[in-house]
Amino acid sequence: MKSPIGHLSYAPGLKGVVAGETSLAMIDGAAGRLQYRGYPIGELVDHGTYSQVAELLWTGAWSPDAHLACAPLEPELVDVVRRLPADSNAMDALRTAASAWGAIHRLTWPPTIDQAHAITAVAPSALAAFARLREGLEPVQPDPALGLAAGFLYQLLGTRPDEAAARALDAYFVVGAEHGFNASTFTARVIISTHSDLASAVAGAIGALKGPWHGGAPAEVVDQLHEIGSVDEAEAWIRATLARGDRLMGFGHRVYRAYDPRAAALRSVAEGLAGMTGWLDKAVAIEQVALRVLAEHKPDYPIKTNVEYYAAAVLQGVGLPPNLFPAVFALARHAGWTAHSLEQAEVNVLIRPDVRYVGPAERHLPD
Amino acid sequence: MKSPIGHLSYAPGLKGVVAGETSLAMIDGAAGRLQYRGYPIGELVDHGTYSQVAELLWTGAWSPDAHLACAPLEPELVDVVRRLPADSNAMDALRTAASAWGAIHRLTWPPTIDQAHAITAVAPSALAAFARLREGLEPVQPDPALGLAAGFLYQLLGTRPDEAAARALDAYFVVGAEHGFNASTFTARVIISTHSDLASAVAGAIGALKGPWHGGAPAEVVDQLHEIGSVDEAEAWIRATLARGDRLMGFGHRVYRAYDPRAAALRSVAEGLAGMTGWLDKAVAIEQVALRVLAEHKPDYPIKTNVEYYAAAVLQGVGLPPNLFPAVFALARHAGWTAHSLEQAEVNVLIRPDVRYVGPAERHLPD
Repeated sequence: MKSPIGHLSYAPGLKGVVAGETSLAMIDGAAGRLQYRGYPIGELVDHGTYSQVAELLWTGAWSPDAHLACAPLEPELVDVVRRLPADSNAMDALRTAASAWGAIHRLTWPPTIDQAHAITAVAPSALAAFARLREGLEPVQPDPALGLAAGFLYQLLGTRPDEAAARALDAYFVVGAEHGFNASTFTARVIISTHSDLASAVAGAIGALKGPWHGGAPAEVVDQLHEIGSVDEAEAWIRATLARGDRLMGFGHRVYRAYDPRAAALRSVAEGLAGMTGWLDKAVAIEQVALRVLAEHKPDYPIKTNVEYYAAAVLQGVGLPPNLFPAVFALARHAGWTAHSLEQAEVNVLIRPDVRYVGPAERHLPD
Repeated sequence: MKSPIGHLSYAPGLKGVVAGETSLAMIDGAAGRLQYRGYPIGELVDHGTYSQVAELLWTGAWSPDAHLACAPLEPELVDVVRRLPADSNAMDALRTAASAWGAIHRLTWPPTIDQAHAITAVAPSALAAFARLREGLEPVQPDPALGLAAGFLYQLLGTRPDEAAARALDAYFVVGAEHGFNASTFTARVIISTHSDLASAVAGAIGALKGPWHGGAPAEVVDQLHEIGSVDEAEAWIRATLARGDRLMGFGHRVYRAYDPRAAALRSVAEGLAGMTGWLDKAVAIEQVALRVLAEHKPDYPIKTNVEYYAAAVLQGVGLPPNLFPAVFALARHAGWTAHSLEQAEVNVLIRPDVRYVGPAERHLPD
């Protein structure tokens, strides 16, 4: 679109404007494909860990020995988290912890892989500490032998997670690690483009992911599964929801017209795990009903399952309370945010769009 | 620019892309004009206060009786600020306070004028508390009779500022209040566009302003005036600096080719004030030398004074330490960030650009 000013193009919301280049994620929504640095997401989920995937995103190389454990919290950081009200939103707590961590470490430009590693490793400890403190429990020291997802569960629940839960949450972390220029990643890139620091970028990104138009509302899938009740009641419930014009949670995605490859990967991992069966069996059965009804409802534009659907089943399955779901998504996305910040620092261009003034003509103050 | 993909335009850094519309600031760089909602900046500085200007930006109406005082800090917020290391960057402290404030108040979409008022009013109190605590001094309770700039000085220094200092800093707050889609304001708009909250938007904006490519380095103007020594030595110092290919701080601006109207307004206010004379006289005399030498240096593209030049003179003149300059700029810009957040919420479009993938072709994990 050309603006009346001439050479400038007008793109509200920046839809269709390519704001930069990336080597991190290849997203093909029409075909339902997602790759991190060339590796298909399904392969990464089946054969990789979040430690390896984060390292891949940061360095570009596949490092079989990568091990990313949760980091202990600085004493000041524990105190900051401790002073947040118990009824704070978990995303607000995580954003504040990221910001305070940056203050403690006096982070400056340029971002480094070491910094990316450090902030990604401390975030799960901060969130777990917040979640325990609000219940009146003391934080648990991290176990350096556990990977990030298992280490988070351990610090949250105070007991070492079983293998199925650790594996399922690690798979969730892998599919959540990175997804192109969404609003939070773009926020991180704008912030780092001013030569600000990595903690500023991550704190800004957490703030953007908090918005339900971006971070979604994964807890609502759980509510929906509760509301549906049994598989037998699913069809009537779904038909009534669509008839009212309401959205079915966990279905439909801005980019993926085909089946969301992240949903497929998560479902496949969860199906192979003993101990995940309760929630998963119900979710799989209800999905079949939902896809059939959705195809009838809009035959020309069938809506498919998105990542939130199986994410909710996994997060619920490993014992996380729904009010932590968005913040756990944020933990997983740290790898992507920090990798994009490193990439943006290499490009080293200030991101600063123009704006069209549509306000009052020149006027003067009353006497 | 057209991309190979066809309909998408490629705009690295979004230069020349109009990402939205605004009724807040009209900026005409070629003519050196700046208006807030139609009112010329010089008129607002001469006849208005920051309280009135903030109200104008939020509501669109000129409210002669507007009074915006600093707000008392919540006890939790004092404790959070208290736990930050004394050697923290002031911008990191301010960003953390904004984030913690949002957590305490559990802010949600949509942003409101009351919220804009509240976060703008609490920020100076948080920054002043941090600046005192790092010196081993206790915070000072705000005086509701003082406007925001004077109230900040009072909470920082512990004594009520004289009229000249209060007036000069208020003028600085007015010229710093708003300036279109710069990187920090754009960050706030991206964050609020996801249906996130106002504290998330402001915390993200502070993080972006921290970068010297956006927030600049106003303290460096002070260093430069120190280095130059006397007015007699100015010409030789400036010629040597330009001969080395170094930048002269306080001159040149991305947008303003003519004299920066904010510098003119600040200079005019400061000139009328007794008590501002020391630093200002020297700054005025050195500016004349600098403009003459710069015009000789690049006759076809003369560089003019920017806002940072007189901002530094004012901030130094009212007794602020240079390591607080960027954070004080952030305090002033709260009105603009929050007004833009309100405007973005009205438009209600998710800001989400596209990206071009330039990474590896599909590949597979080693066995």
